[in-house]
Amino acid sequence: MFSPDSDSASRPRILITNDDGIGAKGLRFLVDCVSDLADVRVVAPDRPRSGQSGAITSGVPLALTPVADFAGAECYICNGTPVDCVKLSLHVFPDSRPQLILSGINHGSNSGISIFYSGTMGAVLEGCVVGIPAVGFSLLSHDPDADFSVCRDEVRRLVMQVLQRGLPDGVCLNVNFPLLPARGVRVCRQARGYWTEEYEWRTGADGCEGYFLTGHFVNAEPQVDDTDEYFLAHGYVSVVPCTCDQTAYRAMPLVESLCL
Amino acid sequence: MFSPDSDSASRPRILITNDDGIGAKGLRFLVDCVSDLADVRVVAPDRPRSGQSGAITSGVPLALTPVADFAGAECYICNGTPVDCVKLSLHVFPDSRPQLILSGINHGSNSGISIFYSGTMGAVLEGCVVGIPAVGFSLLSHDPDADFSVCRDEVRRLVMQVLQRGLPDGVCLNVNFPLLPARGVRVCRQARGYWTEEYEWRTGADGCEGYFLTGHFVNAEPQVDDTDEYFLAHGYVSVVPCTCDQTAYRAMPLVESLCL
Repeated sequence: MFSPDSDSASRPRILITNDDGIGAKGLRFLVDCVSDLADVRVVAPDRPRSGQSGAITSGVPLALTPVADFAGAECYICNGTPVDCVKLSLHVFPDSRPQLILSGINHGSNSGISIFYSGTMGAVLEGCVVGIPAVGFSLLSHDPDADFSVCRDEVRRLVMQVLQRGLPDGVCLNVNFPLLPARGVRVCRQARGYWTEEYEWRTGADGCEGYFLTGHFVNAEPQVDDTDEYFLAHGYVSVVPCTCDQTAYRAMPLVESLCL
Repeated sequence: MFSPDSDSASRPRILITNDDGIGAKGLRFLVDCVSDLADVRVVAPDRPRSGQSGAITSGVPLALTPVADFAGAECYICNGTPVDCVKLSLHVFPDSRPQLILSGINHGSNSGISIFYSGTMGAVLEGCVVGIPAVGFSLLSHDPDADFSVCRDEVRRLVMQVLQRGLPDGVCLNVNFPLLPARGVRVCRQARGYWTEEYEWRTGADGCEGYFLTGHFVNAEPQVDDTDEYFLAHGYVSVVPCTCDQTAYRAMPLVESLCL
């Protein structure tokens, strides 16, 4: 079993990022959760970058700027997206490739189809693409001052397990926490669903009118009992193993009949 | 069989977007390819938005601005990402929901893991999420003046097939064209791979120094003969059926043993 008391020479390295930006409470909490387990490097967006998915920045110069005194961890801000944070960190520090990438803890859930839009999970999927085990953590509260303490034990347990045993090639984890202490942990699949009533027309703070993103998530399978949405609604921590291979293997015969 | 000569009352509706922006030759070519098959609405980014993945814009007012005289199609520009274009179009025109969403034709390939970063495919996956059949088209040339004529026949054939027969629920298509007239069409899986040597430090046009995105794609399975990378390299059109369900079903037992 991985021991949190390993001496420094053999300590694993963890890269931590998020999409709520360097100032988010959930980021600092996550660093604090695992800093005795590994050498932690934080590379986080300089501002909130929610909804950035797997977006990358081109044509604009990126930089890493050191931040002093970040919960005892080596820390940098990056003027890019969460995926940029991961890519640029791996480029700038090639000799200290992390054994694990963590993202979060996000303020707000990333269950169901939210994995597609989520910058938190974008960073995690980038880890998956480059062959580094990666885990995204999210809490079901958008409150900037949310109480993350309910996540601590499970975050530490999962991190120790993944550091010791790794993850299958091409697989990463999307972990969501309910607000109250959980009834347990469930490994499950991504719920099907979509967002609805997505825009409202209004005047923004700067006086400009337009459509502002809003709306709410519709669970397309509310009666089904094997999805992340179901388990979160019933008080469990949901763990969805995710892949960056988006091939719909089962659809191949039908698509062949369309194309050939 | 779907007939291109159907009268207007029964004509299907196609929404077309891209990530190279309203000025891209590939967008205009795609509209021209299909405008006799359907009533076409174009909603495209007002500027290039490559690498935007599934990113969505929040906190900034979005708008659709009509564009006159766009290859005979109803046309709007949007100040958002490709996914914003799809979402906002569906919101603003609820009574003319399209039967098909097309994205492209992208200047440059979107094979392999590029689906993760691609704004072209972000728009396609958004269609998949909301239950509208969707197809992304890309040509293996970044030349702004690329010759798209090699794509025409296959684009029309696929569009007619999907209009007539639809796609399986939760499945969309990622279609890539080689530069020369193709030897045929192959339905295949997404190649495994990653990007390498991703940044160079230089001074940008505005005098600002920093890391600029660059690099090249590494096919992690060059010897394998069932991937999109393989078939493109051998002169075929690649068609990858893609899913927006990123659950790694096969990894569930192992992840359960980590978590429980």
